[in-house]
Amino acid sequence: MENLNQKNIILASQSPRRKELLTSLGLDFKVEIKEIEETYPDTMRGAAVALYIATKKAEAFGLKSDKDILITADTIVSIDDRILGKPVDYDDAFKMLKLLSGRRHEVITGVALKTIEKVRSFYEVTAVYFNELSDEQINYYIKTFEPYDKAGAYGIQEWIGAVAVDHIEGSYTNVMGLPTAKLYKELVKL
Amino acid sequence: MENLNQKNIILASQSPRRKELLTSLGLDFKVEIKEIEETYPDTMRGAAVALYIATKKAEAFGLKSDKDILITADTIVSIDDRILGKPVDYDDAFKMLKLLSGRRHEVITGVALKTIEKVRSFYEVTAVYFNELSDEQINYYIKTFEPYDKAGAYGIQEWIGAVAVDHIEGSYTNVMGLPTAKLYKELVKL
Repeated sequence: MENLNQKNIILASQSPRRKELLTSLGLDFKVEIKEIEETYPDTMRGAAVALYIATKKAEAFGLKSDKDILITADTIVSIDDRILGKPVDYDDAFKMLKLLSGRRHEVITGVALKTIEKVRSFYEVTAVYFNELSDEQINYYIKTFEPYDKAGAYGIQEWIGAVAVDHIEGSYTNVMGLPTAKLYKELVKL
Repeated sequence: MENLNQKNIILASQSPRRKELLTSLGLDFKVEIKEIEETYPDTMRGAAVALYIATKKAEAFGLKSDKDILITADTIVSIDDRILGKPVDYDDAFKMLKLLSGRRHEVITGVALKTIEKVRSFYEVTAVYFNELSDEQINYYIKTFEPYDKAGAYGIQEWIGAVAVDHIEGSYTNVMGLPTAKLYKELVKL
């Protein structure tokens, strides 16, 4: 960990959850953003999409120093071989939560670690089991929490996570946006 | 939920995590504490212990109004048929974390809900898988976070949870001290 804090860690994400999670690992870092188009080939499914977008984000950066470590990430929700990204509007958010209600889905975060030498990428999958949500609960959640910046239209650390997530199989922090334990292992390997 | 907020909910716990979790359910409540001896019969194991202590905490309270709902809870860590409660000192905390390192354990929270009419109790089990912890990491964690108020000597929401918890099977909030989704269901039933 002391070695890591001699590096220049850059987090390429505006998500407050990712900042919080990276801070919880005890790391110092700065945030830098480069906008990219979060599009992917139609034929892609599941983890490949999260890896593809995380890598695309990493490619947008040029690094200068051998102390630089860039972290990019992309989180998606996968259900029935469909991928849910961020909802575009209220109706889209409603449809997503209606689809997740009472069922299992997967949250996949792809992560890319870029140094001056190479890009290394990995992903983590967590299964999340939702209880049934009433339309009233879905409307209350969207109006109160406005989950437009979240894949699948929900944040597990918010009211909906406390009330409706029955259980998970996998990493909890992965659902929030970064698989911290795996990320830490990979950072130490660098 | 509107019906629940016409009740007089009392949380019998000093744990800041439990207060935070009950707040995340959107409930209004007050905190009242009655000290009890957290002892249990030698022959008891696992969930029975958490239920026994949660119920003992509930028995210490007399309720007056039919609007009162008292919530008591007890969280334990179970590994190899041994039960880990709160560590008594530094060495005890070190031994507990050494035991959990690289292995699976169970976190069990027993909850009792008391009204003027009856006491209803239930429990939830979450399996937690730790990565290997070095002695250096264990010492750093105990010195920095002083986990003396936590069963098994760790808080999953702290540094050690981010770095060392590989994955879980079950409810995350249960590991923090209250199985919120199950609690919500049971409260609605009352």
